[in-house]
Amino acid sequence: MDCVFCAVVAGREPAHRVLDDGAAVAFLDRRPLFPGHVLVVPRAHHRTLADLPAAEVGPFFLAVQRVAAAVESADGLGAAGSFVAANNRISQSVPHLHVHVVPRNPKDGLRGFFWPRRPYPDEAEAAAVAARLRAALGA
Amino acid sequence: MDCVFCAVVAGREPAHRVLDDGAAVAFLDRRPLFPGHVLVVPRAHHRTLADLPAAEVGPFFLAVQRVAAAVESADGLGAAGSFVAANNRISQSVPHLHVHVVPRNPKDGLRGFFWPRRPYPDEAEAAAVAARLRAALGA
Repeated sequence: MDCVFCAVVAGREPAHRVLDDGAAVAFLDRRPLFPGHVLVVPRAHHRTLADLPAAEVGPFFLAVQRVAAAVESADGLGAAGSFVAANNRISQSVPHLHVHVVPRNPKDGLRGFFWPRRPYPDEAEAAAVAARLRAALGA
Repeated sequence: MDCVFCAVVAGREPAHRVLDDGAAVAFLDRRPLFPGHVLVVPRAHHRTLADLPAAEVGPFFLAVQRVAAAVESADGLGAAGSFVAANNRISQSVPHLHVHVVPRNPKDGLRGFFWPRRPYPDEAEAAAVAARLRAALGA
């Protein structure tokens, strides 16, 4: 298995994690639309939302809901809202279901479905953002 | 209450419905990105995903999952994939949680998060698309 998100779930691939609740693992996107842009993935490898077993849909989206609330409330992120999105098959960069949770603000410059993206300036900044989100999650 | 999506749920506002399962109502977006673009809303009025009661998250996203599978499999829509997205507060046109389920294809011309949009040429065409989705849903 060389799925990069399975490797993140297993801890073999480094990631700034913000949540791991048994149903889902959430971690910072490395090339965020805005700081605090989080990916939420099911622990098991499923390619698309349609592939997720029905029994896992509720637990998975409860994790997405928690992350969305955290993105909007985290100290220092300053988000006025968020969006939540999953793409599949077409332009799906990693074929493991992943839901993007992205902080939003008025006139934030978001122009497209997923652009422009800007990497964190350094790992310390990413770590600080992840810590703020974990604090908001009580994790 | 003058929420237009509450009015759709109650049947006071016309819409091309594709699903109504008790947890959610799904209907065609009137100005779709592509034909078959569906909005899924909880029956009760909740503004954002974070506001949805935890007990409703699973049933609601099971409806979203069914609609996503239908969008990808419906006869005549010809979608190779889909995306699923919810925006909130910032640029949220109607303050009632709604998840967009949008058919996608390679090089489909999708340029932005939610543009360009094109209305159905007429009501008959919209009705035909809704019928195809209902057939895919077995509804």
